[in-house]
Amino acid sequence: MSERIVVVGFGPVAARLVEELVPAVRSGLVQLLVVGQEAEAAYNRVMVAELGVGRTSVEALAMADAAELEAAGVQVRLGTKVRRIDRARQHVVLSDGSAEHYDRLIFATGSRPVIPNLTGLNPDPAGPVLPPGVITLRDLNDAAVLREAVAGRKRVVVLGGGVLGLETALAASEEGAQATVVHNGPFPLGRSIDRGSGSVLTNSLRASGVRMAGNARSTAVETSGPDGSFSALLLDDGSAIDGDLLVLSCGVRPRIGLAEGCGLPVGTGILVDHHLRTYHEPHMFAIGDCAEVRCPDASCVECRTAGGPSGLVGPGWRQAEWLADYLLVLARDGQEAADALEPLAIEKPGVIVLKARGINLALAGDNQADPWDDELLEAGAVAGRARRQVSQWADPEHGRYVKMTTRGGVLEGLVAVGMPRTAAELVVLFERASELPADRSLLLRLDGPDQLDAGATTSNDPQRTVCRCAGVSAASIGDSVEDGCSTVAEVSKATRAGTGCGGCHDDIKGLIEKHFQAAAA
Amino acid sequence: MSERIVVVGFGPVAARLVEELVPAVRSGLVQLLVVGQEAEAAYNRVMVAELGVGRTSVEALAMADAAELEAAGVQVRLGTKVRRIDRARQHVVLSDGSAEHYDRLIFATGSRPVIPNLTGLNPDPAGPVLPPGVITLRDLNDAAVLREAVAGRKRVVVLGGGVLGLETALAASEEGAQATVVHNGPFPLGRSIDRGSGSVLTNSLRASGVRMAGNARSTAVETSGPDGSFSALLLDDGSAIDGDLLVLSCGVRPRIGLAEGCGLPVGTGILVDHHLRTYHEPHMFAIGDCAEVRCPDASCVECRTAGGPSGLVGPGWRQAEWLADYLLVLARDGQEAADALEPLAIEKPGVIVLKARGINLALAGDNQADPWDDELLEAGAVAGRARRQVSQWADPEHGRYVKMTTRGGVLEGLVAVGMPRTAAELVVLFERASELPADRSLLLRLDGPDQLDAGATTSNDPQRTVCRCAGVSAASIGDSVEDGCSTVAEVSKATRAGTGCGGCHDDIKGLIEKHFQAAAA
Repeated sequence: MSERIVVVGFGPVAARLVEELVPAVRSGLVQLLVVGQEAEAAYNRVMVAELGVGRTSVEALAMADAAELEAAGVQVRLGTKVRRIDRARQHVVLSDGSAEHYDRLIFATGSRPVIPNLTGLNPDPAGPVLPPGVITLRDLNDAAVLREAVAGRKRVVVLGGGVLGLETALAASEEGAQATVVHNGPFPLGRSIDRGSGSVLTNSLRASGVRMAGNARSTAVETSGPDGSFSALLLDDGSAIDGDLLVLSCGVRPRIGLAEGCGLPVGTGILVDHHLRTYHEPHMFAIGDCAEVRCPDASCVECRTAGGPSGLVGPGWRQAEWLADYLLVLARDGQEAADALEPLAIEKPGVIVLKARGINLALAGDNQADPWDDELLEAGAVAGRARRQVSQWADPEHGRYVKMTTRGGVLEGLVAVGMPRTAAELVVLFERASELPADRSLLLRLDGPDQLDAGATTSNDPQRTVCRCAGVSAASIGDSVEDGCSTVAEVSKATRAGTGCGGCHDDIKGLIEKHFQAAAA
Repeated sequence: MSERIVVVGFGPVAARLVEELVPAVRSGLVQLLVVGQEAEAAYNRVMVAELGVGRTSVEALAMADAAELEAAGVQVRLGTKVRRIDRARQHVVLSDGSAEHYDRLIFATGSRPVIPNLTGLNPDPAGPVLPPGVITLRDLNDAAVLREAVAGRKRVVVLGGGVLGLETALAASEEGAQATVVHNGPFPLGRSIDRGSGSVLTNSLRASGVRMAGNARSTAVETSGPDGSFSALLLDDGSAIDGDLLVLSCGVRPRIGLAEGCGLPVGTGILVDHHLRTYHEPHMFAIGDCAEVRCPDASCVECRTAGGPSGLVGPGWRQAEWLADYLLVLARDGQEAADALEPLAIEKPGVIVLKARGINLALAGDNQADPWDDELLEAGAVAGRARRQVSQWADPEHGRYVKMTTRGGVLEGLVAVGMPRTAAELVVLFERASELPADRSLLLRLDGPDQLDAGATTSNDPQRTVCRCAGVSAASIGDSVEDGCSTVAEVSKATRAGTGCGGCHDDIKGLIEKHFQAAAA
């Protein structure tokens, strides 16, 4: 009899897993049940803010079609929660009271938004209750509420200075709303960036029309609006930031309650080994935002320095692809064959690129050390290993800043604001761990005035990664264009490039245009 | 009867004044008495450290020849102090008891080294008593003591992280001594530079073999050496810096006791107006290190923002030249004609260039603000005046740093370490108050790897100032070379270029070589 696989959760990562398993379902090799809490099948959650400012459509966000999947033989249960898991009997108990057997169970429960502890909000993680006019940015309903506020040119207060918060505020402001970002520290993006880039970024955001309220500790939500809706965010200094909509963008936490409830070990997320298997229970797996890859072997160097779940869609997709392979081999050839597979590759530290029209920001790795912070720079320089070095260009008048943290000439950290060509080149150098030129100031020339007519804001290297979420190179996109794709949507369909955060859409557009210009020339 | 001019002091500035007055002495227009405390006629005090490390000779330092002057009719009294001045009778009382009448009296008493308040030293400003093995860097005897220590490859401890202290330590180290600089703050040069350049400079000094002891508060001098000579500098943390010679390089104070003693108003120095006249006493003048140009007119904008005496030889020489003119017109054409002369031009803030072989450092103006110090940058931006802006390149790994502080695109401050071509260009832009290119990073290209073969570490502009002490342009030096000068000494004799701090000697050499290369081509 064929193995029965149950996927708990139906977000973008689960959708990728299901998609990869469909052929095996059709062939009868496996049975597949996917249980989704929301009424909709998987959609691109990363783009909820884009949808909220009116830059994309619900249709474009769809990542799975429940009817198509069912036609292929996949069981899809939408609007259904998994209440608990009975490991002894190997079945899941659903919210409608039914029980479903599993041979393999995959946690793809994702993450939940953090609800800050403010008077006027109920932060119960199991079921937060938010007053009208207060949203997070997780689902289609949040997008609809934001859409209404932006369309009505309302005052949108974004609590949280992370990437998503900044992107939302910028986009909302560009689309006509009056956006304010309220954040804790002296500059946004917290410890991902340094004081210099934080200062330049803050000024650039202000210049783009976003109000920035830094060093702000919020204490309460005032709900004196119509029908008790949000009217102001109150700060601990007695001041208030008035608004019509409060967007909570305070980060996410992995959803681990179900795994904890059935006795699986958890850290920040559900602990899994390099085969994505939960500890002591090789029938169960976790992928995506809810999974924390950290193997039980205390001597594993990679896991000693591993962070928690990345919160990015790209690593989740790579896990889904790898796990689909593993499950297929397991079902077809048995445990021994599956164990012989190469374990999942370790994720390199991610590159973050702010998705915004007026502001270019790229960052990766550790950017805390200033060029003269000898203590920070000596850290890790043991047993002949080189010391860290930092080069820095700051020109806030022109909204430009770049910091390169290297060890032995190779980037360990980068942050660039307002220097798109330099940033693109540094990202390529970072991802390849290539050595920088000895005179780092050469990199600044890429954004020099004599380069402004050169057009491309990206490296010309065909092997560079364009879509970091789906891991697609410029060459692959070029091939798809050669084969007839002439829009971003077509390229996305053919290559998956651009199906994640959407930050590479302009880059894909540029590659398409370049192809047709070359053809016309 | 001709006017009798008495010059009190016989340093480099007095020597220039005397030199300018010699023709008038010959013609009988004025009588001139110059009283020098030292046994030698004027010599170039600025080069005492150079002499001490064996890079120049006593002969090369000479700036006046007492016998020649006397032959021309100038009265020269060496080894003689002026005890007091009797303003009512208009005479000076000398240390030998004699009294000399004056019609005009010029204070050119210079400055005295600051003796720090350390146990084991007698800091009495009137007559400090230093134990053997402790020197300042003021006179030929100091040079001789330093020379012996350097020749013997001894341990030289320099107390004070000013320009002179650093130059001395660097040169002593290069010539074989083991040099240590002990200074107060986290980096040398105090408030002239900023943290970034201070850090890069410190590392460059260390790389050049100089030991740097920063954040060091010295408390006492230990004299356990032979014959009670210096053996160690003791710090307040209980540690000791051992050495064979202690060089006190803790700055200078104007010598104002004589002027104060006869009731003239003093500030830091002897207060003089824009005609270099002491307050209320138009027969008396002050020039050089002892003079503080600050007129009694409270509404004078220039004097409101003027600093004290610069401590540099260049401004003193310009005062001596101007005063010689004034005194000649006064003697020949009377008070009214003299008063009709243009007053002395206000000195622009100076450019400081570290005179060193392995290290290039240039600085000018205010460099305190970092690019993100909004408060400092807004200072002075009133009534439509532009805000300050700062651009900064830091690459400590390669010993490079530049900070450009601009207002309306024009430099208000600059500091550059390890970037000789960028520094030279910035100095020209600073002195001319020219607008910088909008993209400041263009300036970094001057020190890019593609420029290394270009040879010249200086601007090609013929109008640029090569010798800042004597104020001589590249064009004037070029003319003297055309006219037959083929060594630095010959150029110095013909143009006065290179007669001050000596920092431009390499530049002059380069101009001579360029001329002969062009001639050979």
